[in-house]
Amino acid sequence: MASLLEVDAVSAIPTVHIARDRFHLAWDPAIDPVEAVPSGSIVEFDMLDASGGQLTAVSTTDDLGRLDFDRVDQVNGPVAVDGAVPGDTLQIDLLDFEPADWGWTAAIPGFGLLADAFPDPVLRISRVPAAGGRAEFLPGIRVPVVPFCGEVGVAPITGPRSTIPPDLHGGNMDTRHLTAGATLFLPIFHPGARLSMGDGHAAQGDGEVCGTAIETPMRARVRLTARPDLHLRGPEFLTAPGATAATPVGQRYATDGIGPDLVEAARDAVRRMIDWLGREHGLEPVDAYLLCSVAIDLRISEIVDMPNYVVTAHCPLSIFE
Amino acid sequence: MASLLEVDAVSAIPTVHIARDRFHLAWDPAIDPVEAVPSGSIVEFDMLDASGGQLTAVSTTDDLGRLDFDRVDQVNGPVAVDGAVPGDTLQIDLLDFEPADWGWTAAIPGFGLLADAFPDPVLRISRVPAAGGRAEFLPGIRVPVVPFCGEVGVAPITGPRSTIPPDLHGGNMDTRHLTAGATLFLPIFHPGARLSMGDGHAAQGDGEVCGTAIETPMRARVRLTARPDLHLRGPEFLTAPGATAATPVGQRYATDGIGPDLVEAARDAVRRMIDWLGREHGLEPVDAYLLCSVAIDLRISEIVDMPNYVVTAHCPLSIFE
Repeated sequence: MASLLEVDAVSAIPTVHIARDRFHLAWDPAIDPVEAVPSGSIVEFDMLDASGGQLTAVSTTDDLGRLDFDRVDQVNGPVAVDGAVPGDTLQIDLLDFEPADWGWTAAIPGFGLLADAFPDPVLRISRVPAAGGRAEFLPGIRVPVVPFCGEVGVAPITGPRSTIPPDLHGGNMDTRHLTAGATLFLPIFHPGARLSMGDGHAAQGDGEVCGTAIETPMRARVRLTARPDLHLRGPEFLTAPGATAATPVGQRYATDGIGPDLVEAARDAVRRMIDWLGREHGLEPVDAYLLCSVAIDLRISEIVDMPNYVVTAHCPLSIFE
Repeated sequence: MASLLEVDAVSAIPTVHIARDRFHLAWDPAIDPVEAVPSGSIVEFDMLDASGGQLTAVSTTDDLGRLDFDRVDQVNGPVAVDGAVPGDTLQIDLLDFEPADWGWTAAIPGFGLLADAFPDPVLRISRVPAAGGRAEFLPGIRVPVVPFCGEVGVAPITGPRSTIPPDLHGGNMDTRHLTAGATLFLPIFHPGARLSMGDGHAAQGDGEVCGTAIETPMRARVRLTARPDLHLRGPEFLTAPGATAATPVGQRYATDGIGPDLVEAARDAVRRMIDWLGREHGLEPVDAYLLCSVAIDLRISEIVDMPNYVVTAHCPLSIFE
């Protein structure tokens, strides 16, 4: 069972710990909370990586082939918040994230934006320094470590449903801006809201194009507050204050995808980025594809010049320095 | 006719001036170049705004109603570059942009991401300070002036075609990262490449969601270089070095759109941003919509968690300071 770890000296609000074995494998309002906490409580999660512990720092591509997909993308919780009422909003202050010292990135057959082009399984293990450091993803290519959780959600309107697609309850939003210092707001659909989280990421680009980030076990602390004054219809968030590694500001190389279908435009942009990474930096296509997933950002440059949209992939040049 | 304005003291490369009346209203390889320049030349463009001079600093919403759409989105040129060969690449160094001291932003019936929600014409005129300053778009809301041209393109594969949709030849890419200091690369489809540009923007967010930026007359200088060593299949670019106003790094408020259709997800994200701008900053919906177009960025947070994608609208909080 969870234990009270400490009590905030000022507010007398307890901190509750959710152990790594207290997870579930579907979003489902029928799942009972593992813990109920007062509004304003700090909750500490200890989470396995998205493989549910099947992959480790010494895993190989062969191990990826043996992955049991019924055990992936588990989320820890749910934690009910006293006073969290359907129609109101749950405020989740993301206090800190502590990744493990390793992570994995994979091309998984049938999964990812360019699944057709990369049919074979590939697994890469990275060493992960603490937040603020850089992980050497490929020789000489160092990606900023900006940890967050891909999965943060409340009990959905109906269930059970897979933990893969995100929705209005949050879930697998894979949004790299939800870093320490950010605040996420989620609509509440069931009494107590029932927050769960998982899918630790040490680094990811906007889009997560290959389908995996630098996936890592993660410890996280969040503060959960019921907001009866706020009535949202979907996830919203306030990013961390100040300039952070989540928003690289230096020079970027960028490739465009242009056409009437935004997904196909995104594919073209990523294909061209893979070409550029090969041409300029000598990367093999699959290495470039995985790098795109952990370090390259997809932006919608224009979405109004019918019938053609522009999606642009941005590569921060600082990863080569 | 164009005149040689000056000669670069080091390279003896001439600068050529393209006057504001030397424009065309379609992308078309049949259009003869107005000028031919050696590779490496600097070309200066003097361009009317995207209305072709129909709107001015004293225009009103009534004037918008009288706009002749057959005269909008003209581009100046084309300029042929000696030695630019089909299959090679044209390098366009964007040297500087000088907007006029005013600009317009409009909701145009039937145009824009939320055209259904905003059926009525609205025109807003902004005073525009020099690049690096901020334009007061609404009382107390100041948007960084980061000028660029929405239209930069070469003669397309076939034509004539509208100047509205962008394509592999570039054109109306409306990409706000193509600022002074950036370098754009476009594939060459016809001898001389035949570059044209137009659609001056003083400020725009990623997406240009209402369909217009802060539209302004613009002077621009670019260097045109044939790159026989480079064979691109679509537009690519290197952004300006260093941190610029084009990449706001401070705190942002963000709203998500989530679902199986990226365009609809983008619409949801913008609708939620409009709600937030009303709720937090008291903006009327149409003002919020126009502000989204000039200052809010659309990012693809994830594009792999099938069947639901996440598009996130990011609002830099610095515009309220």
